[in-house]
Amino acid sequence: MPVRKFALSDAALERSPGQDAEVFAGNVVDQRHGAPITIGFGRWGPNQRLDETLAVDDVMVILEGRLSVTSDAGTVTAGPGEMVHMPKGAAVMIQAHEHGAVTAYVTHPHWQEAQE
Amino acid sequence: MPVRKFALSDAALERSPGQDAEVFAGNVVDQRHGAPITIGFGRWGPNQRLDETLAVDDVMVILEGRLSVTSDAGTVTAGPGEMVHMPKGAAVMIQAHEHGAVTAYVTHPHWQEAQE
Repeated sequence: MPVRKFALSDAALERSPGQDAEVFAGNVVDQRHGAPITIGFGRWGPNQRLDETLAVDDVMVILEGRLSVTSDAGTVTAGPGEMVHMPKGAAVMIQAHEHGAVTAYVTHPHWQEAQE
Repeated sequence: MPVRKFALSDAALERSPGQDAEVFAGNVVDQRHGAPITIGFGRWGPNQRLDETLAVDDVMVILEGRLSVTSDAGTVTAGPGEMVHMPKGAAVMIQAHEHGAVTAYVTHPHWQEAQE
């Protein structure tokens, strides 16, 4: 695999599977590429919400906007330049604030394979 | 492991091991925490440079400034909100631009263990 650089515009954003919210994700590296991790970008509409139990370890880096993540550890809120680590097995409610959010994410292993 | 949120100020930045450059890294999640990935923040001084052969898959998200990564695939340059994936085994020269850089990183497996 070569060293590669990615911008948001490289991601083909699609609605999160099985969800109705205005939450879109686009992998730029995943199970097709041979590395052990999935890398991508996400876009959250204003005030949109997802409920999920993590099938993988997932790190979100907030690039724009703000997200709150509620779990049995309470609620954390992250803004630009901050990260949230959601370990495998965690049950989370992720909520965008009024301006939505843009994220970069890394998962191990591949979230699309783990979800099948 | 609980869901956790991290800011740059949560990282205890230390000079990259075995390097003289003004390049500092601080893990916020690593082999001490039980997850399969290491998560951290990095700070690059102006025009600083590292040469490294990757012992792990490493994703850098540029939060501030600009970095160029040269490998046998050529040179890529990334700025705020962009990512660079450096696969395990890649030989890279990473160079900060005139304003330095701040990064978030995720590695699999743990870079500190792989380096030992």
